[in-house]
Amino acid sequence: MCSAPLDASRLRTDAPYTPKPVPDIASADLAALKSATDRMIQVNWTAAQGWADPEVVPYGPLALLPTASALQYATECFEGMKVYRGHDGRLRLFRPMYNCERMYNSAKRVTLPTFEPEQLLQLIRKICALEAPKWLPPSQAGSALYIRPTLIATDSSLGFKVPDEACLCIFLIYWPTPQQATPALNGAEPKGMRLITSSEDAVRAWPGGTGAAKIGGNYGLALQEHARAKEGGYDQVLWLYGPDRQITEAGSTNVFIMWKTQSGRLEILTSPLDERSLILAGNTRRSVIELARDMFVEKNIGGFEACDVVERVFTMAEIEKANLDGRLVGMFAVGTAFWIQEVGKITHEERDIHVPTNRVPHVGALRQKVSDIVYGVCQSEWADLITE
Amino acid sequence: MCSAPLDASRLRTDAPYTPKPVPDIASADLAALKSATDRMIQVNWTAAQGWADPEVVPYGPLALLPTASALQYATECFEGMKVYRGHDGRLRLFRPMYNCERMYNSAKRVTLPTFEPEQLLQLIRKICALEAPKWLPPSQAGSALYIRPTLIATDSSLGFKVPDEACLCIFLIYWPTPQQATPALNGAEPKGMRLITSSEDAVRAWPGGTGAAKIGGNYGLALQEHARAKEGGYDQVLWLYGPDRQITEAGSTNVFIMWKTQSGRLEILTSPLDERSLILAGNTRRSVIELARDMFVEKNIGGFEACDVVERVFTMAEIEKANLDGRLVGMFAVGTAFWIQEVGKITHEERDIHVPTNRVPHVGALRQKVSDIVYGVCQSEWADLITE
Repeated sequence: MCSAPLDASRLRTDAPYTPKPVPDIASADLAALKSATDRMIQVNWTAAQGWADPEVVPYGPLALLPTASALQYATECFEGMKVYRGHDGRLRLFRPMYNCERMYNSAKRVTLPTFEPEQLLQLIRKICALEAPKWLPPSQAGSALYIRPTLIATDSSLGFKVPDEACLCIFLIYWPTPQQATPALNGAEPKGMRLITSSEDAVRAWPGGTGAAKIGGNYGLALQEHARAKEGGYDQVLWLYGPDRQITEAGSTNVFIMWKTQSGRLEILTSPLDERSLILAGNTRRSVIELARDMFVEKNIGGFEACDVVERVFTMAEIEKANLDGRLVGMFAVGTAFWIQEVGKITHEERDIHVPTNRVPHVGALRQKVSDIVYGVCQSEWADLITE
Repeated sequence: MCSAPLDASRLRTDAPYTPKPVPDIASADLAALKSATDRMIQVNWTAAQGWADPEVVPYGPLALLPTASALQYATECFEGMKVYRGHDGRLRLFRPMYNCERMYNSAKRVTLPTFEPEQLLQLIRKICALEAPKWLPPSQAGSALYIRPTLIATDSSLGFKVPDEACLCIFLIYWPTPQQATPALNGAEPKGMRLITSSEDAVRAWPGGTGAAKIGGNYGLALQEHARAKEGGYDQVLWLYGPDRQITEAGSTNVFIMWKTQSGRLEILTSPLDERSLILAGNTRRSVIELARDMFVEKNIGGFEACDVVERVFTMAEIEKANLDGRLVGMFAVGTAFWIQEVGKITHEERDIHVPTNRVPHVGALRQKVSDIVYGVCQSEWADLITE
């Protein structure tokens, strides 16, 4: 193929637009996750020509024929990232190449056009440099905007085929903080997320499927079970897999358990990224594993009880056994949108497991460490500084 | 909920539009499956208000925010049907309530709004009555248009949630005949479809998943394997399931095998619609089973060799054994878009199975029977007459 590659250096930024006021933090649209900033980057692609010049355009509707491949066949993928305003007044991304490489893999998985991940990263940096300052002024240290790169097939042929036309959009929206996202139940203080396990006839991801890719099809199919969870007063589904009820994800986030092993050693455990592709390879997941290994594995560094960090398949039966034995120490879900949130309750086959929260300082320390990195309190190679 | 139900009687047909010329049968757009008729039905839905009045509007692009739920989370489903111009000059649908009920089930599966299937059918009849006469004049007996009811979530919240806004579109496009769809390879006459079995690490549908629903997410995930098949010179993937390589579907159509059993009896066999939800409940599939039972089960009625019609799980090993034993009689794929097409070749783990075509008259007789029903050559309760 000699079609044009995605080329961030050709970005055109001269399209006129009408600035909107920054919405009040309490506005309904903001809480509804509908408030985008003024402009987005749009890049069209055709099989014949490759990637067109990227353009900064006003944020607004796309014109899509009802036959568009994304609307019919879910040829679509996305990423979730944040841009953070640091306490030093600088804007930062968090390990953004990981997301850009994952989006490359997601695109490939549903036969969307690919690109150099580095070019995507440069476009993300540019839209942040253009749009973030107004919405995240230096005076608002400790705040963030959510970035949603979205790639959809616009090919208007109704045939079941690899799409010949696509469109990449990169836009920024407000996302409420996790505290806002988990309101207290019945007026009580929230005591961690409430999870209910998926039923055996509802499977989110399966070996040979697409669970490891960030594609639309993984989400729509999970909403029926998600709706049941919400109706029952739960925050998220704890997705199990297989007859032995293996733990996979909570809602659309990765999940970690903390317990004492039979030998009495503290352990942080999460499901592995194996060839079955059941688990999304989360950026926060990876970072939590690496940080926890660095911070907790050796004995009592910094006052933390020593703790192993393990990736292996584990099951609901193991969690229930640990709970009965009094060995369950905590559980937390991690993701870009939802940060690092403790789980307070799991309901499984009508049995409630009350998961301890704040029993050990490890989760809070991990949250603080990630926060310090993204808001520039400590130096880290994981922070990607944006030049405004 | 006291929100408004879908109500076909409230259809508004007064929107102005510019008639387009009917494309030439040889036009590139027609072959590309991009040629819609002048108008479509559009019905908007919100959780608060329910279904708005259906409207006939010019066929054209929808304005969708990049955050639209269908573009992000594949909250989308569709149907595939045809309207046929009969030899008696009448327009007919084929068992359309089956499709309308299936669309209800697909919508429910991805938390889209539901409706009375009968109301959807009435809307389909109306758009056919308005649009089909120009494109399928009575002089063109034996021709058809493809109908694509499409339901997408337009909700612009980026949150992972049951959508609050959706849009139903019903439009008609040209679809090439199966002869056009399966061009000859290397100039030779087509001798049936060429299939290649899916690899073990590519799974289209899985127990507890969505294989039985007609939702976008089932299709995008299958394109990677489909593209490999096309590159290898095949028409479709023969989707297998599980370590024992069970036969499920061919491309996005149901599939039947014909063989002699060990006892020497002719058998038509297809995979069952069981609780695993691996198989799409096709309208043509069901009709072929019912017709074959009616036409072939008793001994030598109408000159056909008696034949059992069986729905059970079967495997590639069984097909390979029947082939080696000389018991393989034929194979065919069935679907609305692709009609009833014989398979000429299966490649499995680099071994080729040459499947006999036209060895028995049963497949041709089934194809003729369905054709006679949809084109009004014989009377049938399965034909749904449209009043123009």
